[in-house]
Amino acid sequence: MQIHDLPTPALTIDADAFDRNLATMATVHPGRALRPHVKAHKCTALAAAQQAIGHDTFTCATPREIVGMAAAGVGTELLLANETVDDTRLRAMAELDVPVIVAVDSDATVDAATRNGITACLIDVNVGLPRCGIAPDEAGRLADRARRAGLDVRGVMGYEGHLMMVRERDERLTAVEQSMELLLRAHRDVGGPIVSAGGTGTFDQHGSTGVTEVQAGSYALMDIDYGRQGLPFEQAVFVVGTVISVSEGWSVADVGLKALGMDHGKPAVADGSVWFCSDEHLTYAPTERPQVGDRVQVVPSHIDPTMAMHDTAWIVRGDEVIDRWPVDLRGW
Amino acid sequence: MQIHDLPTPALTIDADAFDRNLATMATVHPGRALRPHVKAHKCTALAAAQQAIGHDTFTCATPREIVGMAAAGVGTELLLANETVDDTRLRAMAELDVPVIVAVDSDATVDAATRNGITACLIDVNVGLPRCGIAPDEAGRLADRARRAGLDVRGVMGYEGHLMMVRERDERLTAVEQSMELLLRAHRDVGGPIVSAGGTGTFDQHGSTGVTEVQAGSYALMDIDYGRQGLPFEQAVFVVGTVISVSEGWSVADVGLKALGMDHGKPAVADGSVWFCSDEHLTYAPTERPQVGDRVQVVPSHIDPTMAMHDTAWIVRGDEVIDRWPVDLRGW
Repeated sequence: MQIHDLPTPALTIDADAFDRNLATMATVHPGRALRPHVKAHKCTALAAAQQAIGHDTFTCATPREIVGMAAAGVGTELLLANETVDDTRLRAMAELDVPVIVAVDSDATVDAATRNGITACLIDVNVGLPRCGIAPDEAGRLADRARRAGLDVRGVMGYEGHLMMVRERDERLTAVEQSMELLLRAHRDVGGPIVSAGGTGTFDQHGSTGVTEVQAGSYALMDIDYGRQGLPFEQAVFVVGTVISVSEGWSVADVGLKALGMDHGKPAVADGSVWFCSDEHLTYAPTERPQVGDRVQVVPSHIDPTMAMHDTAWIVRGDEVIDRWPVDLRGW
Repeated sequence: MQIHDLPTPALTIDADAFDRNLATMATVHPGRALRPHVKAHKCTALAAAQQAIGHDTFTCATPREIVGMAAAGVGTELLLANETVDDTRLRAMAELDVPVIVAVDSDATVDAATRNGITACLIDVNVGLPRCGIAPDEAGRLADRARRAGLDVRGVMGYEGHLMMVRERDERLTAVEQSMELLLRAHRDVGGPIVSAGGTGTFDQHGSTGVTEVQAGSYALMDIDYGRQGLPFEQAVFVVGTVISVSEGWSVADVGLKALGMDHGKPAVADGSVWFCSDEHLTYAPTERPQVGDRVQVVPSHIDPTMAMHDTAWIVRGDEVIDRWPVDLRGW
């Protein structure tokens, strides 16, 4: 099958670019130095490729991702890098054969974990992003409470998400090091072998931060936003559309905002300038006037929500469709 | 079951607000004067409620919506208000028992329809929104071509989508009337019984435009954007989340940007101010400090993509969950 035969909008992954991205990351962070974040792709077949190159521990954002990874038999240890107090979901994770670690940042999340049979946790520390995470100075107290409740406290995590898009590399490095001082301060009080942090935007800035593993996910597929950061990863995902209407000055493809994460702004097309997206349309000014029926490659501005909108990723090499991966970890 | 028992994020529909919205619209546009747009909700159970109140013709944006509506047996005539040249999907629509009309705006879309057995069309006319639609002066020529090819040309459609969010009501009315003059000019050359246009933002501004039916969809559920327009429809959809983390000055709920259409901006919460959304988090400044485990009602800024992110709509009355509707028309 060729790309031109795919029903559109079709989410495609360039096999060679994807393989190079995985190899580049595995050189910098081999094996367990990377705990790939599943939320970026929600695809167990993709995670299996990450495991095949040496990363056998994974990061998830939702219980659904944890349970789905376990069902697919991918990963030897799964981290829920997020808080939940949902008894049903905590029990489901506790009953898995694969070891599961959950993040906790409050008495309530510790209590929810223990009453549902969870056995291991990381203390989630606020390292500057106003989201989840306990204040660094309170991390030790929470770790003590978790241990008294019977949890194996494996260490700390902190996500410097506010620094991923700092444009200047040196400025980013300084900010990452300051942020990680907060995490290490917490770790001194908490203990445990794991200090988990980082993402694609800061993947190579943890050489001297004391972090034991990096949680990057977007690096495998990339998007417009990360593409501006001067990272050594290539755009591997394109949402392929069909031109359905051609007017004087603009054309329309069938890749709308229900097929593209829009929170980071507009997508891009190779041969033109995007004007706007509607539910099922992308209106753009083409460089050369296309024909109705032509294909267009659309680059998403944010990869994570884009993957979550598609049930299938088509793996391509050149114009050839060589495989089909279900995006099987969608939902909650 | 109570709202508090739902796994979160949970898309809920307030049954009473929804019923009132349907009744309000059916008073202004009874029966076939409204052709409800399915793209706003992607839910055949919801469409069945629209049919029960008297609207038995429907508008769809994708072949998947057409085929799914037919499979559910909802609707006596389905309009694909969009262009496609996908042979497989056109054939699938042509083979349905329910009458299907497709929009065409070019020779290529007419040819694709006829070669795949489609029997009826509307000429899609550009009425000012730079998207699909043929120039008004060319509509007659395309209608002639379609008729020669054997299509039953049922009339014209044109979507004044660029006017939905004009804030001043009078200004909107003037602009709608000018826009519809383009559609009527095309209709004089095209002929046929149908002049289809409009949306929720202009639903009551077609009294003297000559339009025979209005394609509104969002009115049933509403969102922040339409809520600002002074329309007589109530917010009926809330994405319910659980507070998972509470810090000094902000809290975090588990309703992130994978559960909310973000192209119209941030969502809102009743008891606080939203700071930002991440993939699985909503960070907000609460009016009163909540407890971990509390529920939060989130109002989406754009209803259509929000519905497309959920597989279930929970129907609620007060705190009671009274029904569960599958969002069964997702995808393409």
